[in-house]
Amino acid sequence: MPALSPAIDPAELTARLVRCPSVTPEEGGALTLLEELLSAAGFECTRTDRGGVANLYARWGAKDHPRSFGFNGHTDVVPVGDVSAWSCDPFGAEIRDGWLMGRGACDMKSGVAAFVAAAVDFVRDTPPDGAVVITVTGDEEGDGIDGTAAILDWMVRADERMSVCLVGEPTCPERFGEMIKIGRRGSLTAYFAATGVQGHSAYPHRAKNPVPALARLVDRLSAAELDSGTDHFDPSTLAVTTFDVGNPANNVIPARATATVNIRFNDTHRSDTLIAWLEAQAAQVAQDTGIGIEVSVKVSGESFITPPGALSDLVAKAVQAETGVVPVLSTSGGTSDARFMRTHCPVVEFGLVGQSMHQVDERVELAQIHALKAVYARVLAAYFAA
Amino acid sequence: MPALSPAIDPAELTARLVRCPSVTPEEGGALTLLEELLSAAGFECTRTDRGGVANLYARWGAKDHPRSFGFNGHTDVVPVGDVSAWSCDPFGAEIRDGWLMGRGACDMKSGVAAFVAAAVDFVRDTPPDGAVVITVTGDEEGDGIDGTAAILDWMVRADERMSVCLVGEPTCPERFGEMIKIGRRGSLTAYFAATGVQGHSAYPHRAKNPVPALARLVDRLSAAELDSGTDHFDPSTLAVTTFDVGNPANNVIPARATATVNIRFNDTHRSDTLIAWLEAQAAQVAQDTGIGIEVSVKVSGESFITPPGALSDLVAKAVQAETGVVPVLSTSGGTSDARFMRTHCPVVEFGLVGQSMHQVDERVELAQIHALKAVYARVLAAYFAA
Repeated sequence: MPALSPAIDPAELTARLVRCPSVTPEEGGALTLLEELLSAAGFECTRTDRGGVANLYARWGAKDHPRSFGFNGHTDVVPVGDVSAWSCDPFGAEIRDGWLMGRGACDMKSGVAAFVAAAVDFVRDTPPDGAVVITVTGDEEGDGIDGTAAILDWMVRADERMSVCLVGEPTCPERFGEMIKIGRRGSLTAYFAATGVQGHSAYPHRAKNPVPALARLVDRLSAAELDSGTDHFDPSTLAVTTFDVGNPANNVIPARATATVNIRFNDTHRSDTLIAWLEAQAAQVAQDTGIGIEVSVKVSGESFITPPGALSDLVAKAVQAETGVVPVLSTSGGTSDARFMRTHCPVVEFGLVGQSMHQVDERVELAQIHALKAVYARVLAAYFAA
Repeated sequence: MPALSPAIDPAELTARLVRCPSVTPEEGGALTLLEELLSAAGFECTRTDRGGVANLYARWGAKDHPRSFGFNGHTDVVPVGDVSAWSCDPFGAEIRDGWLMGRGACDMKSGVAAFVAAAVDFVRDTPPDGAVVITVTGDEEGDGIDGTAAILDWMVRADERMSVCLVGEPTCPERFGEMIKIGRRGSLTAYFAATGVQGHSAYPHRAKNPVPALARLVDRLSAAELDSGTDHFDPSTLAVTTFDVGNPANNVIPARATATVNIRFNDTHRSDTLIAWLEAQAAQVAQDTGIGIEVSVKVSGESFITPPGALSDLVAKAVQAETGVVPVLSTSGGTSDARFMRTHCPVVEFGLVGQSMHQVDERVELAQIHALKAVYARVLAAYFAA
């Protein structure tokens, strides 16, 4: 057994992490700091870096123990944007009226600090019969190819495991405690390129105009009802995000037009069936109009759900006990690294109020960091007491 | 009577005009040269410049004579574009294998040279009982606001007149003599701007996406049959020339989308009825979708026709006699300054083969310049013989 480690103040740790300039894919000192603290607390740490991305795997307890509680988070942050628009140093971690200011304060250095502090206290004060695993990546805000996915690849090779996983992303829209996420919609982006034949506006019969064909396609796609929602999911949505030609000449029919469509889909769909549908729609319009339409698709993630059950009950009870709020189990919102974790074990997400995520003057309430640490501590205690 | 002027070689005059760098709105020496030649030939010349545009009005014969034959043309040219793509100096007037090379060689310094040469010869050799009027503008390729329109405004104020007018623009698609234009379709350009509310792609119900609404509108407009043609006109056409959003972020629903539509319309329509139709279509889509769509329209010209009759017969017979080709009477093509002239008197257009207009290595066959002068000479003789 290592020497007893001192308690970690999660607000102070958040501040130290905010001072690390870890804009994706820069490590910025954040994972190095966590590795030092966790190692000192008796965690066996492994850096599972890949493709220029820093990742940290830390385990307390036996590798092969059948009960292993996992946390997941990230220390990378989105760029600060126009620094002159900030009222503070984005990497200064200034405290102002009970709030900690800075990029990543909310998303999600505070979440990481809270679960690290909770885990260190827990294994020191009440060493469990089981393992506690902490995974933190330096690429959640970017492509995520070499982030949590790389940690999981390494875990498979190294025969490491989590029985369940709690992702510490901000999950509450307005009030702390109000929402646990038990799944996420899938997301894909389709890129359409319609190609015709350029010509003079006065002689459209000698040209083939790709614009009306592509307009018809995006109108049809936008008008389609993908589904009407499922037990745990809102209806799937489709948004046309851009449509571009860039032809400045009124007397010229352009040869090419492009459009982009983003789909957020529930468990009614898989990306492959949606891609087939998009291709069929494009082919139908192409047949009707004589305009070739190419489709390429980037899938960000499939939809997934950890159905309400033991894990979500455990977290919900801890939230209610600590905050007095009964959390809803939701599948709303964008993607998170839970999309990778769900291939490994049951996964849910719970964290702070996310209102200032990605914004100028991103901030977190100091009291909320402490409350979050307390929720995570209750979750750990309840998991290993069961 | 002035002294007899020497004959003008129309090919040589074309070359001299091509050497004048008269890219709109630069006069480039072209109208000054014509003014000198026409004054020397007994024409009374007036520069009717306006708004930085040079224009020339030249009359031989009595101002108040009831028989006045008019020619109209322009000496301004479109820009050369990428000069390194040319195989010759665009303003060099190089002769190559029987062709004269250069910007404006085809559109339409050769046409101007041909009617000036024909008119000078005609009034010298067979002074008519009537007037011959030559109008040449320096702004046909630009907005045309201060070009032929300014000459006509001045003519009204000065009580000058033409009984009929022949515009010397290139009119033949492939073979010299094959086409006379007796009218033109009107042209208007409509600019649509759809405005919604920006939002996150994952939550389209919280945003209002202008792209599908505008796509629906341009699809409907493109699918509409405006008419099925008239006695002398092809069906009206509508071309969507661009559609732009410019949103690079797949997770953002944009707030604004714009599109441009160009309509070439026959005598079934007037611009005001078409504008009312466009506005009604936009309003319908706006009502269906809740997306505001603004419409602004620029009218380039109304449709017009000089119905087949004395003037077109006269020109057609001259063409046939000189070329052996029976010309068709057409209303095809883009706009020309005939759209202004038609408010003053009957107008038709006849000129060269226009294949190299506006292109790199624009060129004109020397033989065709001489043939065109001969046609114009026959027209003048026949007009005053009648």
